[in-house]
Amino acid sequence: MSILHDRERLLAQIRAQMFEKRYIHTLGVAESARILAQRFGADLDKAEMAGLLHDYCKCWEIDRQRQVLIRHDYPAELLEADKELYHAFAGAIVVQQELGMEDPEILQAIRYHTTGRVDMTLLEKVVCLADYIEPNRAFPGVEELRQLAEQDLDKALAQALGGTIHLLIGQRKQVYPLTLLAYNDIIKKLGGVTW
Amino acid sequence: MSILHDRERLLAQIRAQMFEKRYIHTLGVAESARILAQRFGADLDKAEMAGLLHDYCKCWEIDRQRQVLIRHDYPAELLEADKELYHAFAGAIVVQQELGMEDPEILQAIRYHTTGRVDMTLLEKVVCLADYIEPNRAFPGVEELRQLAEQDLDKALAQALGGTIHLLIGQRKQVYPLTLLAYNDIIKKLGGVTW
Repeated sequence: MSILHDRERLLAQIRAQMFEKRYIHTLGVAESARILAQRFGADLDKAEMAGLLHDYCKCWEIDRQRQVLIRHDYPAELLEADKELYHAFAGAIVVQQELGMEDPEILQAIRYHTTGRVDMTLLEKVVCLADYIEPNRAFPGVEELRQLAEQDLDKALAQALGGTIHLLIGQRKQVYPLTLLAYNDIIKKLGGVTW
Repeated sequence: MSILHDRERLLAQIRAQMFEKRYIHTLGVAESARILAQRFGADLDKAEMAGLLHDYCKCWEIDRQRQVLIRHDYPAELLEADKELYHAFAGAIVVQQELGMEDPEILQAIRYHTTGRVDMTLLEKVVCLADYIEPNRAFPGVEELRQLAEQDLDKALAQALGGTIHLLIGQRKQVYPLTLLAYNDIIKKLGGVTW
């Protein structure tokens, strides 16, 4: 039986890739992704699976993550960006190769869970937002975000991505352009609706 | 004699394009641009001239600004962006055609004074920053920005552009991508130096 269909083995495999705190976060994202999927009409099982796998190689040495990206010809633009972004793109490759995950929707949800992108799918939005609001998260504004996520996926995601941009600028850090484009895209589609 | 060399006629011509408040702002930008040019080694006369001309068609009807851009094949991306951005790109065209301004450095400083861009020239930085800190400006943080501009052009400009991005996100508005790229570029070149 594939590890993807053997929950106990899968959890043990995921657990072995990361520190305990990251594993607890992972379970939180899977749970929140499932709840958001139910609320907004995404596939529940895919959302939970993407949540379980989203940070698969987050705790790997940065150089190991980088090597995955280099082997797959990722552009220099990404390799020169904040190293915190590597794990999402590398993770989508690794779970396909090592665990046999072939579902393109789940792979894209893993790939874009940190940066976002233009034209995010429903599943991508659910996983990206779950990563912000899972129960173990504690940052200024997270309660407001959770309340917004009760009502409106797009508004909550725009607020979450906007918050990330705001935070990076406050720290005098670069902002990965895809994240701004993701934010702009959602704002544009909200068409002047504000909150 | 070209109007560009007849200060009295030039000022009257600029004055005729705009409301009084905008004209007072224009004189402030010209003055601040000259001071910043002196401080950071740009051409004083070009900085002042770019300051005088930077908002030449800011008070024109939006449709008149848009027509200038359409006649010059500006991309749909700009035409779909915030209309507040039109005047800078249209202004560079208009002052060339109507006033005979042919200096490419001055034209670029006008063109990019609102959005910024990657690899801004010294003159572009001076005019862009002068637009933020001229004496008539009053917004939260402007005093801090003026103090930073006493010391470091790049830090002040990164802070100014970052402030604009922050403000737009707080208003749930789209951010023109060039502005983020301009901010990222300066942060990157500052190479981890913070303030």
